[in-house]
Amino acid sequence: MKGAPSAEHLARLVELFESSRMSKTFGMALRYDDAARAVFDWRYDPAFDHFLDDVHGGVLATMLDNAGWFTAAAGYPGWVVTVEFHVRLLVPAKREDLQAVGSVLRRGQRLCTTTMELRSASGRLVATGSGTFLATGRGHPE
Amino acid sequence: MKGAPSAEHLARLVELFESSRMSKTFGMALRYDDAARAVFDWRYDPAFDHFLDDVHGGVLATMLDNAGWFTAAAGYPGWVVTVEFHVRLLVPAKREDLQAVGSVLRRGQRLCTTTMELRSASGRLVATGSGTFLATGRGHPE
Amino acid sequence: MKGAPSAEHLARLVELFESSRMSKTFGMALRYDDAARAVFDWRYDPAFDHFLDDVHGGVLATMLDNAGWFTAAAGYPGWVVTVEFHVRLLVPAKREDLQAVGSVLRRGQRLCTTTMELRSASGRLVATGSGTFLATGRGHPE
Amino acid sequence: MKGAPSAEHLARLVELFESSRMSKTFGMALRYDDAARAVFDWRYDPAFDHFLDDVHGGVLATMLDNAGWFTAAAGYPGWVVTVEFHVRLLVPAKREDLQAVGSVLRRGQRLCTTTMELRSASGRLVATGSGTFLATGRGHPE
Repeated sequence: MKGAPSAEHLARLVELFESSRMSKTFGMALRYDDAARAVFDWRYDPAFDHFLDDVHGGVLATMLDNAGWFTAAAGYPGWVVTVEFHVRLLVPAKREDLQAVGSVLRRGQRLCTTTMELRSASGRLVATGSGTFLATGRGHPE
Repeated sequence: MKGAPSAEHLARLVELFESSRMSKTFGMALRYDDAARAVFDWRYDPAFDHFLDDVHGGVLATMLDNAGWFTAAAGYPGWVVTVEFHVRLLVPAKREDLQAVGSVLRRGQRLCTTTMELRSASGRLVATGSGTFLATGRGHPE
Repeated sequence: MKGAPSAEHLARLVELFESSRMSKTFGMALRYDDAARAVFDWRYDPAFDHFLDDVHGGVLATMLDNAGWFTAAAGYPGWVVTVEFHVRLLVPAKREDLQAVGSVLRRGQRLCTTTMELRSASGRLVATGSGTFLATGRGHPE
Repeated sequence: MKGAPSAEHLARLVELFESSRMSKTFGMALRYDDAARAVFDWRYDPAFDHFLDDVHGGVLATMLDNAGWFTAAAGYPGWVVTVEFHVRLLVPAKREDLQAVGSVLRRGQRLCTTTMELRSASGRLVATGSGTFLATGRGHPE
């Protein structure tokens, strides 16, 4: 896909996310900002606390993975898959709403590299990530 | 901690995990094998599918993080924190029970490096990970 | 490429490595073992010490990158490129010969994931790595 | 160390780097910018080309490692060690001077997380990295 993703393409990706079961289980919401970056909001839910009452790192990893994946997917007509991603946990997240945002570092013909940032509602940088996503050339599910 | 972790220490870690809310939300079970490696079992639950009906990568990352963290924690009397971890997704996990196991690569005075493997019930290698964990010197919660 | 790499293919890769300037600058030697894994030997050279007289981490990273790259390249007829790699430094390498070995974790149609280990002459595990390599479909240089 | 690093501390680190053998072997120069970020300049040297006449990824990794290490070391009175680092190669570097810069993402009591960027002389982003560095509490070598 040359140029900026179309509004239809982004709306389709949001719809796909919202149709997934995990979006409801985790309680995450997706939107795209003006730069076609995926923004995930998560409202604090104690069901995802680990035993020190911080949000479990797996939730942070899930948000970062999502932010990278949907930012990458915005740039390709078909399906992408996560190849690998890296997570750095900087400070604990404690009873806070969280927001993760992805950014494209490099978009190639088939491979997309993204960085991701996760902040608490107060704006504190909680975790960062980066990842590689492969455009498969296969279409999205109907 | 010199030498192998005591059975009491490992039992305490399992108890802590089982007391966490996220263990129930995800439906994960922890045990330690004879080499004091943390083994996490997850019974397939469609609530964690993404929209192609594969298990969401966030669940895989959560299992790998857990496997590394609890394997690292077995080697220190107090609390550890995840500094960073890396995840490689090799094949999709589709409607399958999963198992993640951690292994110590290096245990230093304060830093522990682990590797993690995640397999499907059929034994297929689904994902791998590695991570760094910091022993804080603080005790576990009572 | 289906099946095991041919001896000709591996010999060609060794020849390409030996024709590179960096192989002479670093003083590294490549061979393939029976499992078509790339094995790099480096004879200790104080020119690569950092200021504490340990071997610089950049040499270790170079060996790990090479071991992954050439192990990946063994499985594709054409050229591969390094997408990303991760390095864990476990213990310092001090005035020692070093050996790095790559292993294929997953070989896909276009993407290859490898792990790498670097040991000192005495067999001590000094560093580990993992990486992603993309088969470009372009031929090797003549 | 509270507050900004002293000019003396940074000058001492530059001096240590310049005293290392690897700095001469690679031909890299270190300075600190106004934000106490380590800036490494490397003048293109064909001795580090791989066999396609691009600069070898090991040189890029060495520059990124250095940029992270010296940026981290600026914040602690004593010695730091590289725990792990991750490298993403975005575009090839071909017969170009290169510059790597480190930035602190999080500076804790003992652990420092940095990000690193490597650009060609023309300003193109060639590679990125991130890493963890441990402050050992040991003094620098005399």
